[in-house]
Amino acid sequence: MIKESIYHRPKDNFASAYDKETLHILLQTKKGDLASVELIHGDPYQWKQDKWINQHSSMNKTGSSLLYDYWFIAIKPPYRRMRYGFQCTDQHDYTCTYTERGFYEKEPNDVSFYFNFPFLHEIDIFTAPNWVKDTVWYQIFPERFANGDKSLNPENTLAWESISPSATDMFGGDFQGVINHLDHLEELGINGIYFTPIFKAYSNHKYDTIDYMEVDPQFGDKQTFRRLVKECHHRGIRVMLDAVFNHSGYYWPPFQDVLNKQEKSVYKNWFHIWNFPVQTDGTPNYDTFGFVSSMPKLNTTNPEVKQYLLDVARYWIEEFDIDGWRLDVANEVDHTFWREFRKIVKAVKPDVYILGEIWHDSMPWLEGDQFDAVMNYPFTNGAIDFFAKRTITAEAFAASITNVLHMYPTNVNEVTFNLLDSHDTPRILTLAKDNKQLVKLLYLFQLSFVGTPCIYYGDEIGMSGDQDPDCRKCMEWDKSNQDRDLFAFVKKLIQLRNELPVFGNKGAFRFLQFDNKKNTVVYEKVTSHQQLLFVINNSDIALQIDVDSLSEQTCFELFTNKQVHFNKKATIQIEAYGYRCYQIK
Amino acid sequence: MIKESIYHRPKDNFASAYDKETLHILLQTKKGDLASVELIHGDPYQWKQDKWINQHSSMNKTGSSLLYDYWFIAIKPPYRRMRYGFQCTDQHDYTCTYTERGFYEKEPNDVSFYFNFPFLHEIDIFTAPNWVKDTVWYQIFPERFANGDKSLNPENTLAWESISPSATDMFGGDFQGVINHLDHLEELGINGIYFTPIFKAYSNHKYDTIDYMEVDPQFGDKQTFRRLVKECHHRGIRVMLDAVFNHSGYYWPPFQDVLNKQEKSVYKNWFHIWNFPVQTDGTPNYDTFGFVSSMPKLNTTNPEVKQYLLDVARYWIEEFDIDGWRLDVANEVDHTFWREFRKIVKAVKPDVYILGEIWHDSMPWLEGDQFDAVMNYPFTNGAIDFFAKRTITAEAFAASITNVLHMYPTNVNEVTFNLLDSHDTPRILTLAKDNKQLVKLLYLFQLSFVGTPCIYYGDEIGMSGDQDPDCRKCMEWDKSNQDRDLFAFVKKLIQLRNELPVFGNKGAFRFLQFDNKKNTVVYEKVTSHQQLLFVINNSDIALQIDVDSLSEQTCFELFTNKQVHFNKKATIQIEAYGYRCYQIK
Repeated sequence: MIKESIYHRPKDNFASAYDKETLHILLQTKKGDLASVELIHGDPYQWKQDKWINQHSSMNKTGSSLLYDYWFIAIKPPYRRMRYGFQCTDQHDYTCTYTERGFYEKEPNDVSFYFNFPFLHEIDIFTAPNWVKDTVWYQIFPERFANGDKSLNPENTLAWESISPSATDMFGGDFQGVINHLDHLEELGINGIYFTPIFKAYSNHKYDTIDYMEVDPQFGDKQTFRRLVKECHHRGIRVMLDAVFNHSGYYWPPFQDVLNKQEKSVYKNWFHIWNFPVQTDGTPNYDTFGFVSSMPKLNTTNPEVKQYLLDVARYWIEEFDIDGWRLDVANEVDHTFWREFRKIVKAVKPDVYILGEIWHDSMPWLEGDQFDAVMNYPFTNGAIDFFAKRTITAEAFAASITNVLHMYPTNVNEVTFNLLDSHDTPRILTLAKDNKQLVKLLYLFQLSFVGTPCIYYGDEIGMSGDQDPDCRKCMEWDKSNQDRDLFAFVKKLIQLRNELPVFGNKGAFRFLQFDNKKNTVVYEKVTSHQQLLFVINNSDIALQIDVDSLSEQTCFELFTNKQVHFNKKATIQIEAYGYRCYQIK
Repeated sequence: MIKESIYHRPKDNFASAYDKETLHILLQTKKGDLASVELIHGDPYQWKQDKWINQHSSMNKTGSSLLYDYWFIAIKPPYRRMRYGFQCTDQHDYTCTYTERGFYEKEPNDVSFYFNFPFLHEIDIFTAPNWVKDTVWYQIFPERFANGDKSLNPENTLAWESISPSATDMFGGDFQGVINHLDHLEELGINGIYFTPIFKAYSNHKYDTIDYMEVDPQFGDKQTFRRLVKECHHRGIRVMLDAVFNHSGYYWPPFQDVLNKQEKSVYKNWFHIWNFPVQTDGTPNYDTFGFVSSMPKLNTTNPEVKQYLLDVARYWIEEFDIDGWRLDVANEVDHTFWREFRKIVKAVKPDVYILGEIWHDSMPWLEGDQFDAVMNYPFTNGAIDFFAKRTITAEAFAASITNVLHMYPTNVNEVTFNLLDSHDTPRILTLAKDNKQLVKLLYLFQLSFVGTPCIYYGDEIGMSGDQDPDCRKCMEWDKSNQDRDLFAFVKKLIQLRNELPVFGNKGAFRFLQFDNKKNTVVYEKVTSHQQLLFVINNSDIALQIDVDSLSEQTCFELFTNKQVHFNKKATIQIEAYGYRCYQIK
């Protein structure tokens, strides 16, 4: 046993309260090292004749990454308090007990040696809005979705065409365009829209804000935006806006004031200026996003700035009833600000969704006091590398996704924002070298996974596009140019997600098999009374996949709509890039 | 290389902001596995021709526990942002790079693979009051320290004698008694008093509060308490009170109201009552501290209860200018409550000290948003097991203390509350089987360690006492019965701590040697320009200790006041239970 590779700490993904009576406990061990793990657990204060009263419960191996096995148990301590340790048994039947104080050959009797979850307080539980678990998002880049009001066209607006845009082109997309095409979204079945920024800004992407309290006139006015939100809500679609609070744009009046008045500006402490005069040419002498001088970093610890931004956050909820805030460059803003942000917005609308843009491990923002979710790029990486770029093996894919699933607590995973691409990356069809069959596999995987999936506008009808600005082409509205077969497939997946709770967030995800040579994976989604078995052939040839551990039964395949009879083993004939989903029970 | 044993996550003790420009980065590896570790680090946004610009800096092995080596570096990223990874080299010269995405044979060029500390915000840094780093605490159990006003004696007060008390005896200790004996404390050199509860309560220990807004009449009135605080402040001594907010006492009026009016009580939601009628006999049908029916758990998520307790917290600071709150059973109260508690008390007095009673790993409470410190029982365990109980080897002792030092960030360690015993444990002299030489070694170790040490009343003059109530004997004021030699020794240690910053918190602690057969340890305290070398013989025979790695020099020994000449190696003759502290530079 490699004891040094066994890791647990009573916090984060390793120990968390799932609901008001259930704790989730996770142990990480070296892959293949242990044969079994039992949780030794008991109330901290229950004793019988100087002996701590505890019991043993088997932990379940829920997956493996390239280096680790993960052992999991959900447990309900009767008094909401629990001391616990791990009885680890290796492949040679050697057993020892792992506690907060280390490893012991014999189970320590002294309860103070054990890990502690001192009290399960409902108020401390990570809690995201309930509706998010059942939401499928659709991301809209407003300048490129649809032009519904030509009178708003900015100067030099180009004709609406699905051509590769330059970084500065304008095509006149607007709110009325979105309203006009809500049928498309309703037909697809999505029930949440994430809009990249809509506030008055200089560029076409609007990440360089000029006025946080106004919508960009090229998109319409506030009345039209209000109408857009109402229309969405009427159709059961939630609306999330993009909050660019890490930095302002160059033309934001406070920054202009600093440029004009320099040290005499009342706004000089609204930024992080190193010295005066402020230099915007060459390397800026103030903090910026990256080294982009036109995006000066906001001093979010300045009470005036904080008040201003929190007012913004509140305003769009109070006045327009939006349902979520996506926070741009969220990891570079201070935690203290986000804690206050959460308090303010949840006070206005308790079920508002707070989504941070963070590309890396985001545990520090997901402790319950800041965000409800982050953009789950670790998920994206695994899916894209396997299905689209084809740079990793089936085993590495399974390992990567298993790692993603075990890096956060379950209630975080259930609402995390699973995207395949965005305005910041190439489109999936382009990543998949125009192979639409791979795009289908990506969607199948994304939409059968836990979390809250997001579809980037146009991907569902087969749009292509490389790194931005190419991924920001105008939406294709000519149905004869749309891939309606792909649209129908995505629509079916969303329907399955809605109709079968086990297909979506109610089902626990686990890889059952992978085959590096054949390039195939088998995974399951399970609840206490339902099980789905997914079989995926990620190769360009038809082949047979042997699936083990099935009970003898007849079950239904969701895509071919056929009954299939399984013995304990089954050999599944599957075409190139084929997929099956068997409803086992 | 056992890659599975290498652990890092960009939070907690592994990555933290020490001050507004410095990050502390820690890596945990299997003991003895690696020969060297370099930090690969750079700004996330600095590129040159598609290549991320980074540099390598050597990490320093700062210690080993039984299973792990710890590698540390303090680093100042020029733009307060840092992406980083670890270049690990094992004993066979095999090298690989550890990143957030795993291990790679070749350093990944893609910056997004690396760990991220996205931005160092001063406001997010864990910050405890500055004065705590230079504080030596003295714990007083008021009923037993000194009887200064016989008119306040409760019924059946016993004569003041250092005899073993029963659980319910009363001896009449009071505030005036403390005031009368401040000279003793000033002479000893302590500069902080931690009082166990002083509020009106039923028992002698006062952990069963009746009125949080009144002092217990047996201790005096508010005027006397105010005078006590003023007298302390006048002598440069801070005052910390005990906040028992997890549970009330049986006789607290709201609980009495519930007992009387049952479901009709307006206070029924101030507790966690499972059903009515409330049963206080046998197993209580409401949440309690442990299973103690006379200590009903408070519902700290009820806004009324919260408001009441926060008012209490504020009142004693505002009205009596106390300097700290010690929080009883702090781990069983919700985090949400403590976050609000911190805001409230720091708003009233920004440099108030918040100390939680937590006996186990306390990282979740030490993220900067809740406590300044916890009672450092993991430190206590190592010191007591080695010096007093003598149940662990020198190696296990060094391992245990090294583990304690690496489980929290440096700025947490600098203010953590290091006790050897308390009203909840046997006294050190008793734990050491009345061997006063061992008590001296314990004090030497405690007072030369980082953190803020605490002396339990009477220990400094050689009082003994077993598990409570025996450890709560009346203070011995007859000087002829006091161990004045021990008192002088503790006094000298406190002086050294005050006079030599490297002796106290300014010095970084590291074990240099241990010898299990001889039962000896050697450790150092260092700053950039000072070094102290501690040599301890924890055995009952005189022996020689060989110390390596010294430069040739003459240095001063702090306890014998002698000059000693060292060659590169030195053989130190040292008596049974002897100790030396050499001022190397």
